Amino acid sequence: MNLKQYIREIPDFPSKGIVFKDITPLLNSPIAMEEAANALMELVGNQKIDKVVGMESRGFFFASLLALKLKAGFVPVRKPAKLPADKISITYGLEYGTDTLEIHKDAIQAGDRVLVHDDVLATGGTAKATCELVERLGGEVVQCNFLMVLELLNGEEKLNGYEIRTLMRYR
Amino acid sequence: MNLKQYIREIPDFPSKGIVFKDITPLLNSPIAMEEAANALMELVGNQKIDKVVGMESRGFFFASLLALKLKAGFVPVRKPAKLPADKISITYGLEYGTDTLEIHKDAIQAGDRVLVHDDVLATGGTAKATCELVERLGGEVVQCNFLMVLELLNGEEKLNGYEIRTLMRYR
Repeated sequence: MNLKQYIREIPDFPSKGIVFKDITPLLNSPIAMEEAANALMELVGNQKIDKVVGMESRGFFFASLLALKLKAGFVPVRKPAKLPADKISITYGLEYGTDTLEIHKDAIQAGDRVLVHDDVLATGGTAKATCELVERLGGEVVQCNFLMVLELLNGEEKLNGYEIRTLMRYR
Repeated sequence: MNLKQYIREIPDFPSKGIVFKDITPLLNSPIAMEEAANALMELVGNQKIDKVVGMESRGFFFASLLALKLKAGFVPVRKPAKLPADKISITYGLEYGTDTLEIHKDAIQAGDRVLVHDDVLATGGTAKATCELVERLGGEVVQCNFLMVLELLNGEEKLNGYEIRTLMRYR
């Protein structure tokens, strides 16, 4: 199955000149959803995973089900003021401005082997910040996987040193 | 297994006087996560489901994996300006102010049998609005299920006429 058939390109979203890759047709198709879930599992292979970390919000779609399949815990990394218990946060630069992500302190135990998942690898800022949060809590990032990478934004370079795997590639 | 053991109560979050029910310890435990997923599936039973609708953001945690297990499509209902394609929206009242939710027009086909899932049933405003979006697109809401209901907020009354099922009850 060519999963790209299930990705809809939306011109000028969220702003002029950007062609947004919409994954909702993939989510809407039971066979594409199952294929994507199985393919993501194959990317992980036999590596032992203790926690799967997904980033708000689209990272949650597959991160929770990867956790279930891997018999790992699921850890949401969230925007500010969403997580209620003791947490740490990181602020990182965007093209314009900054963004902040948070993780519960007790979500990762020292030595945990962690899979980081998000839907799209673009500039890599969100994924890099997430890896740093995991590592500050003593976790080891075993792999970062994505449904797709947007190659021209150089996210793979930014995540240099991590194992990066992805199901689809776009220029 | 008593799933309530995995729910953490956080006083005064998000505001003074509210005791927030934090589900992240449940998500963090592979056995509790699997138990909750299986128990939610039992609530659905043998009913045929074409689409599982989850509400941003915490509804996504289990809605996507219920969709996968039910071999149904997964449909995210989102806050404004997040969904990129043709959509409809609904604005509904909160205790203070209003909130708006959106759904893609092509996410539900007329006659689709729909499971609506969210983590918590509180006042029922979000769930009611979601059911209305589904119905405006011609879908039939077969069940609304939740990890927990907060009984004193009367959400079940607000959803009168729908099949409401929940794993945990809190006063």
